[in-house]
Amino acid sequence: MNSVIEHRTWRYATKQFDPSKKVSDQDLETLLEATRLSASSYGLQPYHIFVISDQETKEKLKPVSWNQSQITDASHLIVFANASDFGEELVDDFIENTSATRSIPSENLKGYSDFMKSKLVSLPSETKSNWTAKQAYLAFGNLMQAAAELKIDTCPMEGFEADKYNEILGLTEKNLNATVVLTIGYRSEEDATQHLPKVRKSTEELFTLI
Amino acid sequence: MNSVIEHRTWRYATKQFDPSKKVSDQDLETLLEATRLSASSYGLQPYHIFVISDQETKEKLKPVSWNQSQITDASHLIVFANASDFGEELVDDFIENTSATRSIPSENLKGYSDFMKSKLVSLPSETKSNWTAKQAYLAFGNLMQAAAELKIDTCPMEGFEADKYNEILGLTEKNLNATVVLTIGYRSEEDATQHLPKVRKSTEELFTLI
Repeated sequence: MNSVIEHRTWRYATKQFDPSKKVSDQDLETLLEATRLSASSYGLQPYHIFVISDQETKEKLKPVSWNQSQITDASHLIVFANASDFGEELVDDFIENTSATRSIPSENLKGYSDFMKSKLVSLPSETKSNWTAKQAYLAFGNLMQAAAELKIDTCPMEGFEADKYNEILGLTEKNLNATVVLTIGYRSEEDATQHLPKVRKSTEELFTLI
Repeated sequence: MNSVIEHRTWRYATKQFDPSKKVSDQDLETLLEATRLSASSYGLQPYHIFVISDQETKEKLKPVSWNQSQITDASHLIVFANASDFGEELVDDFIENTSATRSIPSENLKGYSDFMKSKLVSLPSETKSNWTAKQAYLAFGNLMQAAAELKIDTCPMEGFEADKYNEILGLTEKNLNATVVLTIGYRSEEDATQHLPKVRKSTEELFTLI
């Protein structure tokens, strides 16, 4: 089996983490850098990511996460918060960054800036929020995979009360919304789910070749 | 640089593909298998993926893709189509698959089936569609990364007219909607964007550690 498939077969949604095993600072740094390099539409990265190792914060989030043990047992809890709304500043910040990173005068980027603004800024707020959430999920898929490459276990989770997360982490006032959560760490030997065969649609069912 | 970061630094949104270079059948098989193994909420994989190498179909899609050359020059065009609506059958099919894959009588899965249905089936159609699109983006992020591991170039694209894609590929009648597109192949040596430094938010700007 080649390594591309091997990582992805090894990965499973970990139900029971070993609370004594922590992700090292070096591995965490690699995971964050991998996530930071994610593609996003126009490169705008319209989200913010909370990386929680503080046990007290995890304890507060557990009851609003269907009381799932992963929240407190995993080494880190990573909360992806998408921009629930945005204005021109999202584009302006990106243009400023592009200008600095690529040594291009920002006036040379005005056409591109105007184009992005015309596509994005006047969208209804709900459309914006759904679009930023999709960008977050793309980065999330990338992070899960980076973890698997490092043989770090993960459990992707949508089973939490977003409004309570927003309250506890103070997201609403920052125009952010908790959209999806990844717990990371190391599987407990006792987690029986690791031995179950994966349930997936067949190749024939999932793909159409044209 | 470790390989996790190396893949992700190598990858960039390819603007110019070399039309003479095709992704091999073996690599394509690996990419599809990697995508098939993607995580999704409850494991439901509420999307279908079209893998297009047929030049005539690509020519039809180009004018409704902002006339971007990647559509026709790339080796393959991969269209992720999320379920625009669904009923109990999404859960029933999954339960049947789980029962067969894990040799569990389906009556033993009834509680889990009812739970999923209670969470999903009565959602408004727009909420369902946004949720299935997010699952597609997770798989999309995974596929992009698998391609980078194989040193296959990609360009993720949202710049297309979804309604026209739906019409050309006959998606609407299948309750599907074109949500995001990946062109895959090999970069042209002339593509100047490959030499540009990546523009990304800084670690400090993107992450909050708690």
